[in-house]
Amino acid sequence: MNTGVLGTGMVGDAIGTKLVQLGHKVKMGSRTANNEKANAWVKKNGAHASAGTFEDAAQFGEIIFNCTSGTGSLDALRSAGSKNLSEKILIDISNPLDFSKGMPPSLTVSNTDSLGEQIQRAFPDVRVVKTLNTLSNPLMVNPSLVNGGDHTVFLSGNDAEAKAKVLSLLVSFGWKSGNVIDLGDITTARGTEQILPLWVRLFGMFQTPMFQMKIVK
Amino acid sequence: MNTGVLGTGMVGDAIGTKLVQLGHKVKMGSRTANNEKANAWVKKNGAHASAGTFEDAAQFGEIIFNCTSGTGSLDALRSAGSKNLSEKILIDISNPLDFSKGMPPSLTVSNTDSLGEQIQRAFPDVRVVKTLNTLSNPLMVNPSLVNGGDHTVFLSGNDAEAKAKVLSLLVSFGWKSGNVIDLGDITTARGTEQILPLWVRLFGMFQTPMFQMKIVK
Repeated sequence: MNTGVLGTGMVGDAIGTKLVQLGHKVKMGSRTANNEKANAWVKKNGAHASAGTFEDAAQFGEIIFNCTSGTGSLDALRSAGSKNLSEKILIDISNPLDFSKGMPPSLTVSNTDSLGEQIQRAFPDVRVVKTLNTLSNPLMVNPSLVNGGDHTVFLSGNDAEAKAKVLSLLVSFGWKSGNVIDLGDITTARGTEQILPLWVRLFGMFQTPMFQMKIVK
Repeated sequence: MNTGVLGTGMVGDAIGTKLVQLGHKVKMGSRTANNEKANAWVKKNGAHASAGTFEDAAQFGEIIFNCTSGTGSLDALRSAGSKNLSEKILIDISNPLDFSKGMPPSLTVSNTDSLGEQIQRAFPDVRVVKTLNTLSNPLMVNPSLVNGGDHTVFLSGNDAEAKAKVLSLLVSFGWKSGNVIDLGDITTARGTEQILPLWVRLFGMFQTPMFQMKIVK
């Protein structure tokens, strides 16, 4: 499958690399066509990897991953272009973290709204699925790195078929389907984005991002 | 030990009953001295159980449990009286849930502040420890009801000695000390209070509050 990965940070790198390993073609998008980090990533990942602008990546992908930082996500998606995203699945991994006032970060949107909902409202015909935003990037694509892979990831989105496809992708990443919890529509992204204030404190305390949350019954 | 439990709802009932079972004396406090639910609870719990106003309960307790609803907590604590709470450990189990705009509830305070912090600021010489607010009341006092008792509870507070005492109390409730995570000072209550938006969605989906979160590494 042709996929577009928006963002050249650690999340984009981890997701893009995993997709290439799984045999997908990946175009990594950034603000400029000749991004240093994107070029280095392409070099490392061979013939199935390419890079371009946000627009190039969105045009290329059948499924798009939003791996940009939360504060830049809406701008990045506008640059990608609504016509290039139209009807496609957009897997939103971003978090609305605001580091501008120091540590720990606060959220730029929370409580009665979420970044996932803002993205869905801005691009109403895009099939937004929020997932993977509650854990560190190495674990997104290699869940077995903690607790034998036995921990929880969430799905939020309005489109059941899109969520089913994202579930298959997550399983291909190594997730056990029983550990993927579909919370409901995109408004449930409020719940997972508001996990971050706890996550950053646990990160600070453990001094490693290699931990996760498991819902137990 | 003499303890005060503020609030006559399910949380106050569960905590008060457990404390009596463990041999403590408990005075349950409410807005009025002759509260029907408090009287019923006293009848059920025998000689170590008594009831009175918020002020009576705060005077009586060496340790006070805030089991009032979040939107009423500051008022209840003002009724309890700062001189009756002074220097004491206040175990704050409340959550700032606002049900006035329908379901799911939003939070009356979040992101850059928390109810735990508001309480600490309003009563600066009280040793506030936020805990047990991320799970359902049956599990607070009987953690073995899910996953063999193997799941996580958090502590937030500025006073290390107070947190150590609360940890002992949690262990007496059935918690394994290794499952109690001290997140740091009272500002970390932002993290645990913001778990609630996810918790209410999971509750709605599972149709039972008998689930919990476990942090795994």
